[in-house]
Amino acid sequence: MSENNNLTLHTDFYEINMMATYFEKHMENRHAVFEAFFRKLPFGNGYAVFAGLEHIIQYIENLHFTDSDIDYLKEVTDYPDSFLNYLRNFKFKGTVRSAYEGDVVFANEPILQVEGTLCECQLVETAILNMINYQTLIATKASRIRTVVGDDPLMEFGSRRAQEVSAAIWGTRAAIIGGFNATSNVLAGKKFGIPISGTHAHSLVESFGNDYRAFHAYAQTHHDCVFLVDTYDTLKSGVPSAIKVANEMGDKINFAGVRLDSGDMAYLSKRVREVLDHAGYPNTKIYASNDLDETTIASLKMQHAKIDVWGVGTKVITAFDQPALGAVYKMVSVEDDDGQMVDRIKISGNAEKVSTPGKKQVWRITDTKDGKSEGDYITLSTEDPREEKSIYMFHPNYTYINKTVENFDAEPLLKTIYRDGKLVYDRPNLSQISDYAEKELAALWPEYRRELNPQKYPVDLSQKCWDNKRDIIEKVRNYVQQIKY
Amino acid sequence: MSENNNLTLHTDFYEINMMATYFEKHMENRHAVFEAFFRKLPFGNGYAVFAGLEHIIQYIENLHFTDSDIDYLKEVTDYPDSFLNYLRNFKFKGTVRSAYEGDVVFANEPILQVEGTLCECQLVETAILNMINYQTLIATKASRIRTVVGDDPLMEFGSRRAQEVSAAIWGTRAAIIGGFNATSNVLAGKKFGIPISGTHAHSLVESFGNDYRAFHAYAQTHHDCVFLVDTYDTLKSGVPSAIKVANEMGDKINFAGVRLDSGDMAYLSKRVREVLDHAGYPNTKIYASNDLDETTIASLKMQHAKIDVWGVGTKVITAFDQPALGAVYKMVSVEDDDGQMVDRIKISGNAEKVSTPGKKQVWRITDTKDGKSEGDYITLSTEDPREEKSIYMFHPNYTYINKTVENFDAEPLLKTIYRDGKLVYDRPNLSQISDYAEKELAALWPEYRRELNPQKYPVDLSQKCWDNKRDIIEKVRNYVQQIKY
Repeated sequence: MSENNNLTLHTDFYEINMMATYFEKHMENRHAVFEAFFRKLPFGNGYAVFAGLEHIIQYIENLHFTDSDIDYLKEVTDYPDSFLNYLRNFKFKGTVRSAYEGDVVFANEPILQVEGTLCECQLVETAILNMINYQTLIATKASRIRTVVGDDPLMEFGSRRAQEVSAAIWGTRAAIIGGFNATSNVLAGKKFGIPISGTHAHSLVESFGNDYRAFHAYAQTHHDCVFLVDTYDTLKSGVPSAIKVANEMGDKINFAGVRLDSGDMAYLSKRVREVLDHAGYPNTKIYASNDLDETTIASLKMQHAKIDVWGVGTKVITAFDQPALGAVYKMVSVEDDDGQMVDRIKISGNAEKVSTPGKKQVWRITDTKDGKSEGDYITLSTEDPREEKSIYMFHPNYTYINKTVENFDAEPLLKTIYRDGKLVYDRPNLSQISDYAEKELAALWPEYRRELNPQKYPVDLSQKCWDNKRDIIEKVRNYVQQIKY
Repeated sequence: MSENNNLTLHTDFYEINMMATYFEKHMENRHAVFEAFFRKLPFGNGYAVFAGLEHIIQYIENLHFTDSDIDYLKEVTDYPDSFLNYLRNFKFKGTVRSAYEGDVVFANEPILQVEGTLCECQLVETAILNMINYQTLIATKASRIRTVVGDDPLMEFGSRRAQEVSAAIWGTRAAIIGGFNATSNVLAGKKFGIPISGTHAHSLVESFGNDYRAFHAYAQTHHDCVFLVDTYDTLKSGVPSAIKVANEMGDKINFAGVRLDSGDMAYLSKRVREVLDHAGYPNTKIYASNDLDETTIASLKMQHAKIDVWGVGTKVITAFDQPALGAVYKMVSVEDDDGQMVDRIKISGNAEKVSTPGKKQVWRITDTKDGKSEGDYITLSTEDPREEKSIYMFHPNYTYINKTVENFDAEPLLKTIYRDGKLVYDRPNLSQISDYAEKELAALWPEYRRELNPQKYPVDLSQKCWDNKRDIIEKVRNYVQQIKY
C-alpha cells in the first residue's frame, strides 16, 4: 500500500472537524446512514450513466491516516492527542451500497449509500462525491455522443485539455463506460486495458518538411496507416501525398485512413471521399476530430458528411457544456442519545431541495412481458416490492401524479459493495462494465434515451417513504416554530 | 522515485508512434524546438495567470519508461525490440524555458518552450499541455474572482465538484496563485502549505437533531467557531441558536462567524448582520457560499450584501463558464537532413491559426518611468531588444497597427528551467509564487485587469520575426502550388 495511493486527506477540512466533535462528545461510534444523489440530470439528458465506483473502491482500500498525515494535522490544528490517536487507528468498517458502474440512474434517487459510524460516513464524503460527480458526468456525456454516432467507431482524444492528470485517466475510462471504443491516452490503456488509438501529429510532417516524405517514412515504420492530411493543405497536398505513398508501397501498408483535423468537415469529407474512391481506396476510412460533440456530429450526419471514425476530445473529457454534476451526500438516519435510529432531513425553502429522510432502496420496475422500464420506485429499506402484487407509485413533489403497476419485476439499484468494511463485490473488468452499460441502456424506452428533449423517466416514492418525509417535515416545522430565543 | 509518480505513459499514443518513426529513420537525435501557446484568452479576460510549471517539473523528474511500461507497449504494438530498448534507456536531456508560475501571459505568445531531440520534445507534449491548460485556466478564473472580491478573504471549497482528484489538488493550488487565500482540501493543505478552512456541515446539525445542541457541542470542541446556520431555517433557528451558544459560552469561544449556504444571500446577509450587531456581535463575520462566481459576487457587492468572507467552489475549480483552455504545442524549428536548423509552420485557412515559426523569446516591455507594461514583444531568440534604443512593434495579423517605443525596459518571459536535462531553476514555494503573481498583475494597467470588457493588451512581433513568418508562408504556398500528384 503506497503513500501515493493514499487519499485519506483528500477530504474537506470540515469533515475532520466534525469527526473531532463526534469523538470528543463520545459519539464517534454512533450509527448513521448517508446517501448520495443529484438533483438534476446533466445536459438536459433523460438519464445518467453511473461511474466512479472503481476509484472509490481503490480509495477505500487505501484509507488510513499515515504518520505524516497525523503530523500535519498536529501542526495545523489544536486537536487533542486523544483524537489524533483515534485517527491514527482509524479503519473503515462501514457498509457501502451503490449502483454498479454502467447502471442508468436518475435525479433525486440515492445512487450510493454509506452506513457505518458517524465518523467513517463523514470522512469519505468529499472523495466519494469528487469521484462519482466527475465520472458519472463524463460517462453520461459520452453516452449522449454515442447515441448520435450510432455504430461508428468513437475515440477519446482529450488528454491535453482534461482538467489535470486524473481527469484524463479516469475520464477516458468513464467515456468507455458511456460507449466510446478507444482512447489516445497510453496510461489509461495500460491501467484499464482500453484499446489505444493514434497515429501522428502535424509535427511529423513538419519534421520531414512535406506530407509525402513524412507519410512515406511513417508507412515504412507502421502498419494500418492513418495519415493526418491538413498540415499544409488537405486537398492539394495532404490527400494526394497519402495516395501517392499508398500507390507506391502497394500491399506493404494497409492504407487504413486519413484524418481531418481542421476546415469544413462536411465539405472536406465529401471531397476526400470522392478522391479516395476515385484513386481506388473505397475502404480507406475518413477520421474526423476538431472540437466535436453530439451537436456538431448530429449536424455533420444530417449533412451526410462522409466521416467513418470520430475523435472527440475537449467536449467529452471536460463535459464542456456542463462541467460539473451536483451530486450531494446527505445524512438520512442517525442513532440518537437513546440508541434509536432516527431519520433526518435537510430543509430548504425550495421544495426540490428538501432531502428525503430514511435509509432507502431504489427499485427498478420493469414490465414482466417486455423487460422495459416502468420507472424507479424509492422505498424505505424495510420495504420489498417483490413481495407485493401491485405497487402504487407517486411523484415526490407533485403527489397527484401517480399510478398503480401490476405484473412487474423489481430489481434493487443499490447493491452491497462493502459489508462492515469488507469488500464483498467481485469487480468486473472495464469491458464487462461497458457491455453491462449497453444492456442497461437498451432496457430504457427510446423516448428516454434521445439526446434532445427526452421524456421524463418516473422516479417515484412509496407511500411509506412519502408519509415518513411528510411527518418529519412537520416535526421540523413545529420545532422551528417553537424556538423562542 | 515511485511508480505512482511516473506519468511517462500519460501521453497520446501518437507521440510514441512518431518517436518510433524518428527512431527507425535514424532521426531520433535531430534537434528541434517546440513552443506552447494559446490562441484566445479565457472568459473574455484581459490576461491569463500562468500556472502548471511545478507539476511539469515533478513530471519531468520522474520521466522514464519502467519495465512494466515496456512490457505493455510490447503487448499492444508491433514496435521492434530496438525501439523498445531505446525507450527503456530514454532520458530527458532537453532544455525547457517557461514563464514562471504567477506570470501574466497573453494569447499567441509562447509561454513554454522545449528544445531538445525530436523524440524528447514529442513525448512530453501531452502532459505539459494537460498541466498548463488546466492550471493556467484555474489561476486565471481565480484572479477574476479576486478582482471582484477586493481584499475580502476568499476560500476555495470545490473539491467535491472538481474533475477528479488531481483537479481538486492542483486546481486549488492554481486558485491560490490566482489570489485565493485558503482551501477546504486537507491534502492540498498538506502538499502545498495552503491554509485550510472549514468548520462543519449540515450533517453535524442533523446528528444532534437541532442547531442549538450541534453548535454547543461544536463550540465545546473547537475555537474560532463559524456556525452553518441554514440546516432548518437561517433566521428562525440557525442564527438565534448560534447567538444563544455564544452568549452562554462567553469568552470561552471566539464567535468568529456564521455561514450562509442557501437562500437569498443579499437579503439574508443584511438581516443576519442586523441580528448579530443587535446581539452584540459586530465583529462576527458572515461567510457565504452557494454557487458563487465573479458575476454573482459583483452583483452581491452592488446590492451591498453584508458578506465578509467568500467561499467559492464549483465555479472556480471547474472554470465552469469555460472549462478548457486551448493551449497547443507546435514545432517551430527542426534540424534538416543537412544538420541545419530550419524554421517550421503549421498553415491554416484561418489567419489566426497559422503558427509563428522560429525559436522565439517574449519580451515584456515596460515604461522606464512608471514600470507599467507597454505590451509584449515577440522576437526570434537571436534578437535582444535590450541592445536597442527604440523598438518597432507590430500586430501579428493587422500589421498596419504598430508603434515605436523608446525609454523602455525589456524582461524576457521565457526563463530557463531545464538546461540539457538538468533542473537549473530554484523552485519558489507557493506563498512566494502568490506574492510574485500579485506584483506582476499590479504592473498591468487597470484597463487590462478589469473582468468585463478589458482593453486588449498588445502582443506584437519584431520585424525579423514577421519577415521570417512571411517568407515561410510564401515557401509553403509555392510548395503546395507545384504539387502535381
